[in-house]
Amino acid sequence: MFEFDILARDPTTRARAGVFHTPHGEILTPVFAPVGTQATIKSLTPAQVTETGASLVLANTYHLYLRPGDELIRDLGGLHRFMQWPGPILTDSGGFQVFSLADSRKVDADGVTFRSHVDGSTHRFTPEKAVAIQENLGADIIMAFDECAEPHDRRYNEEALARTHAWAVRCQGAHTRNDQALFGIVQGGVFADLRQESAGFIGRQGFPGNAIGGLSVGETKEQMHSMLEVVDRALPEDKPRYLMGVGTPEDLVHAVQRGVDIFDCVLPTRLARNHAVLTRQGRLNLRNAQFARDGRPVEPGCACYCCANFTRAYVRHLIVADEILAASLLSIHNIYLLVSLTREMHQAILDGTFAGRA
Amino acid sequence: MFEFDILARDPTTRARAGVFHTPHGEILTPVFAPVGTQATIKSLTPAQVTETGASLVLANTYHLYLRPGDELIRDLGGLHRFMQWPGPILTDSGGFQVFSLADSRKVDADGVTFRSHVDGSTHRFTPEKAVAIQENLGADIIMAFDECAEPHDRRYNEEALARTHAWAVRCQGAHTRNDQALFGIVQGGVFADLRQESAGFIGRQGFPGNAIGGLSVGETKEQMHSMLEVVDRALPEDKPRYLMGVGTPEDLVHAVQRGVDIFDCVLPTRLARNHAVLTRQGRLNLRNAQFARDGRPVEPGCACYCCANFTRAYVRHLIVADEILAASLLSIHNIYLLVSLTREMHQAILDGTFAGRA
Repeated sequence: MFEFDILARDPTTRARAGVFHTPHGEILTPVFAPVGTQATIKSLTPAQVTETGASLVLANTYHLYLRPGDELIRDLGGLHRFMQWPGPILTDSGGFQVFSLADSRKVDADGVTFRSHVDGSTHRFTPEKAVAIQENLGADIIMAFDECAEPHDRRYNEEALARTHAWAVRCQGAHTRNDQALFGIVQGGVFADLRQESAGFIGRQGFPGNAIGGLSVGETKEQMHSMLEVVDRALPEDKPRYLMGVGTPEDLVHAVQRGVDIFDCVLPTRLARNHAVLTRQGRLNLRNAQFARDGRPVEPGCACYCCANFTRAYVRHLIVADEILAASLLSIHNIYLLVSLTREMHQAILDGTFAGRA
Repeated sequence: MFEFDILARDPTTRARAGVFHTPHGEILTPVFAPVGTQATIKSLTPAQVTETGASLVLANTYHLYLRPGDELIRDLGGLHRFMQWPGPILTDSGGFQVFSLADSRKVDADGVTFRSHVDGSTHRFTPEKAVAIQENLGADIIMAFDECAEPHDRRYNEEALARTHAWAVRCQGAHTRNDQALFGIVQGGVFADLRQESAGFIGRQGFPGNAIGGLSVGETKEQMHSMLEVVDRALPEDKPRYLMGVGTPEDLVHAVQRGVDIFDCVLPTRLARNHAVLTRQGRLNLRNAQFARDGRPVEPGCACYCCANFTRAYVRHLIVADEILAASLLSIHNIYLLVSLTREMHQAILDGTFAGRA
């Protein structure tokens, strides 16, 4: 359980193709996980998500703790059963959401007190609490409780890093379920020495996988790539690496080249609800009048359910008429694209043809 | 084409089981058609609609004429291709919608001038125009342009009936496509003599099917049943009868007992978006707190995708969290229920076991 087999390595980059074993099935890496914040990939049934080719999905601890409650989900048989996702699930720790509540949270050495965005009620997360909630939810991969600092603030990053490392150790101590893999999280903002220190510390704790947090939150692409390179050198090679909250097709390729295996992002579903389409030739906004009579698929050549069946003209009509189906069809397409992109990278690394990608 | 074979009759009521042949497949009757006002059954893909067991779907001429335009749909290959519904489609005439625009339409003997609900622009429907639009859309079953009067206003019903009959004849004269069945529409409000006159007149025109309009618009159930009985006696027996805009499970049973074959209604999808569920034991509103920890399916024993997979607790969570998937899952259930109910009536009439239903 939770073995990570590296099947092949690209000879000219740090890219690897692997398979991560979980109680709910194998994950071929690199892999992109769509996000089901509230135990649903927005606007899609699990059957539709399966059709996109997704193997791993993410759900958010903060949201599910507040609503409907992690104990309710536990009592109803756990998150897999609740949301009817038969494959692997990953839950985040709630840290990112809690620290995003800039004006309604207070951090101390032991944890964070915050106010709910739903009803303003007061709550407290500690490392032990974040693990207990995630044990109630029952995902295959769960995350240590970390503090995501503003990436350019050195002093804050130093302080947050100390807490993140102490909390990572406390999460390990609190974790009891051996059918869940607890991943550590590397922080350190845009500071190479902090990133190196963090990757070294987290890497030494023996987690079955390691995540890279606090990127894609305002830094430049160059900074992101540079931090990934530092972390890549310092983390254990034989464990999967998960770049949290990333991202675009380009980001996925650049990160795989730098040794990353797992990704998640709300981008495909959020863009879809704003009528935007990811394609291999860039983004389109299908609300534009130029698509009104366009009889081509959303992305010519794409094999997803949306592109195999519908025209741009139809999807634009749904958008203009404010029909929910527009969000569903574009979510299917956008997720399919990112899932396919990671699956193709997996195959290209196996085939020895990955180097050409940039 | 457009043959209607009556396979069996219930010996104690006026119920019949039949099959209506269309260019896009057979329709077993009694049949319930979900409504795709804007060329989409709200929140569902055609694949999901197919899974509910629906054979016939309805789309609205008024809405599609305004947006995206019937000529655009024609140029892109017609409505079946545009919305990717491979089975039979029925379009209404636009009459009901236009006459619903109480303050922004003006009727004369030749047609109706009205203002668009989308942008306030002025348009005019005549019988010839309503047929031309429906020929552009290309549905299998199209409807004569009629006037739906307030059901209790005798004088208005008399005047409207004269126009409806004259327009029915003009629609027949205007209709050119022999791959479409043009149905006539019986009106007459709650007045038995007007209904009888109308059913007699419309029935004599030789339409391949006849519709009953202007019911389920404010009259009592007793009035509806009484009007159906009058119309049943006056319409040709060998043609399908379509009761427009109905309805609830009880309405379907009562109307089938009175010789009706085809139904459509927005009820299942509209209720779903308001979190209400049709069941064989009555309606539930799943937003209610009593369902928060309810591990049962939405309707125990139901075989739809929603009930086969999810709990009431999960669907309630989706509702409370304002997730789109709630509308999709409840639409699937509600449509499945009405489609199954008509399919079971078809089978019961064949089996000679229909009489027990009331």
